Amino acid sequence: MAAPGNGAAGGDTKEAFRRIYDVLKGELLWDPAFEFTDSSRHWIDRMVDYNVLGGKCNRGLSVVDSYKLLKDANALGEEEMFLASTLGWCIEWLQAYFLVLDDIMDESHTRRGQPCWFRVPQVGSIAINDGIILRNHISRILRLHFKGKPYYADLLDLFNEVEFKTASGQLLDLITTHEGEKDLTKYNIGVHRHIVQYKTAYYSFYLPVACALLLSGEDLINYGAVENILVEMGTYFQVQDDYLDCYGDPEFIGKIGTDIEDYKCSWLVVQALEHADESQKRVLFENYGKKEPACVTKVKNLYKELNLEVCLDSSSSFLSFFLWI
Amino acid sequence: MAAPGNGAAGGDTKEAFRRIYDVLKGELLWDPAFEFTDSSRHWIDRMVDYNVLGGKCNRGLSVVDSYKLLKDANALGEEEMFLASTLGWCIEWLQAYFLVLDDIMDESHTRRGQPCWFRVPQVGSIAINDGIILRNHISRILRLHFKGKPYYADLLDLFNEVEFKTASGQLLDLITTHEGEKDLTKYNIGVHRHIVQYKTAYYSFYLPVACALLLSGEDLINYGAVENILVEMGTYFQVQDDYLDCYGDPEFIGKIGTDIEDYKCSWLVVQALEHADESQKRVLFENYGKKEPACVTKVKNLYKELNLEVCLDSSSSFLSFFLWI
Repeated sequence: MAAPGNGAAGGDTKEAFRRIYDVLKGELLWDPAFEFTDSSRHWIDRMVDYNVLGGKCNRGLSVVDSYKLLKDANALGEEEMFLASTLGWCIEWLQAYFLVLDDIMDESHTRRGQPCWFRVPQVGSIAINDGIILRNHISRILRLHFKGKPYYADLLDLFNEVEFKTASGQLLDLITTHEGEKDLTKYNIGVHRHIVQYKTAYYSFYLPVACALLLSGEDLINYGAVENILVEMGTYFQVQDDYLDCYGDPEFIGKIGTDIEDYKCSWLVVQALEHADESQKRVLFENYGKKEPACVTKVKNLYKELNLEVCLDSSSSFLSFFLWI
Repeated sequence: MAAPGNGAAGGDTKEAFRRIYDVLKGELLWDPAFEFTDSSRHWIDRMVDYNVLGGKCNRGLSVVDSYKLLKDANALGEEEMFLASTLGWCIEWLQAYFLVLDDIMDESHTRRGQPCWFRVPQVGSIAINDGIILRNHISRILRLHFKGKPYYADLLDLFNEVEFKTASGQLLDLITTHEGEKDLTKYNIGVHRHIVQYKTAYYSFYLPVACALLLSGEDLINYGAVENILVEMGTYFQVQDDYLDCYGDPEFIGKIGTDIEDYKCSWLVVQALEHADESQKRVLFENYGKKEPACVTKVKNLYKELNLEVCLDSSSSFLSFFLWI
């Protein structure tokens, strides 16, 4: 069944959204704030295509969908559609920036079914600066299209605050993983929620709706309840993401999950720790966070013993509703 | 001779400036936008001290000095002093952010006489996220102290645009170095100026004065000539920095220069290429950009033959006036 307000127009919306990407990229490649050389313009062109495209654009399209719901309209005027889509693309750019840098920190290999950007020949650590440039593109886009609007400063503040929360959540994740390496019992559902809320939920779920609210002339101060429920939804989304890291088809999720090898405070290990008896806990302590395939298998077998695979399987309608990645 | 408007109060200004750092850091460590754990708060505390402190604070103090000159006052009121210093510290934070990430990209070893942050045990690639957090601190500081001021959006735009120019200059530097590795004749004074202007001059020279202008209620659109002259000064500063990379005392400059080994488009190699005859050019082509000490020595000997060491030595009053690093 088609989602409300999206209906048969879903494909059209996605195509119209995609066309706006070309407009925005074109503006960035001829930004008068920098005198490009041919090779630097070509680099940016290729880098942006490689990293911003290739996802499902769920976050970006959420801005357009939310704005339609707020305006109670099935279709938007051209100017409104352009502005909503532009904010949607800013979130896609933000996501690209996080992914480029996270992949370097996690030493990942693939992303969206292709090599991570820093693993592309001739790129390497230049990817760090490219990540920064992707973040800067958001400010350039916002300035070009929203400077002078009454909500311009609020829009900048929103992107800044959400980025701050995300980077702080990422720090928490990195530090917690170090602590978990020394003592796995530090992982529990409270720690998991704390990380996930900041690292994923704000930018993936709250940000698109908050953008649509600002575009509708609303003051975010009046929407604390909206923030709370979206952060809850984002937390549930990350639980699924943790589940799929272990049980999802790599073809489908576009990467090979390594949470067990990487000692991650995944929802699965938290559940396992909560439900395991003493001897099962010993299996976890001895095998979690080890690169050896035999250790990974032991952890996966334990998850099976504890029925974790079926607790959140793909037939769950709640899961399929949010199957988003 | 003491600089005008600074006089005997120079030491006092620096002390007062330093005290404001403690206030700002305290606010960041208790920012309500993130629920810190004890270990994440402790990490940020240590990371900020390690990377923001330890420099000469020339960029930061320039905001205070420029603001005094604009106000035609030897001393500022407490509130004015606080706001000018806060903007100065934002520039110091920006510098810290660039240095943390540049050192990873350049595989540097030391910075300000201590190991680069990513080389500190337990830090490694977490330094990338720490760099992002340092950038985010600027937005948090500006929001806390300037939100509601009539120039708030212009201040955000200024920091964003200067960061964009700097990151674009850094990309140009990285790409040019790759091209130079294939063909050294690509380096010339125009290429050097293009990189340096964007990579260094805007954030080091233009930004402090532009902050002071905004704080004084001025519109930056009326100060194009100020921008031009400050970018010229910043370009000259980088020429010196290139010179000192080769001839400066490592004790004094806090790092061991590696421009020759790294194939950098340094002012020195550009001068050498311009003044060398065909046989001297061959020496450059064969030895520039090689790690072997014998090759570095050959390049340095050639620089001596071409009189580059004395063209900009430390007795030059222009150099000492700007001796800033």
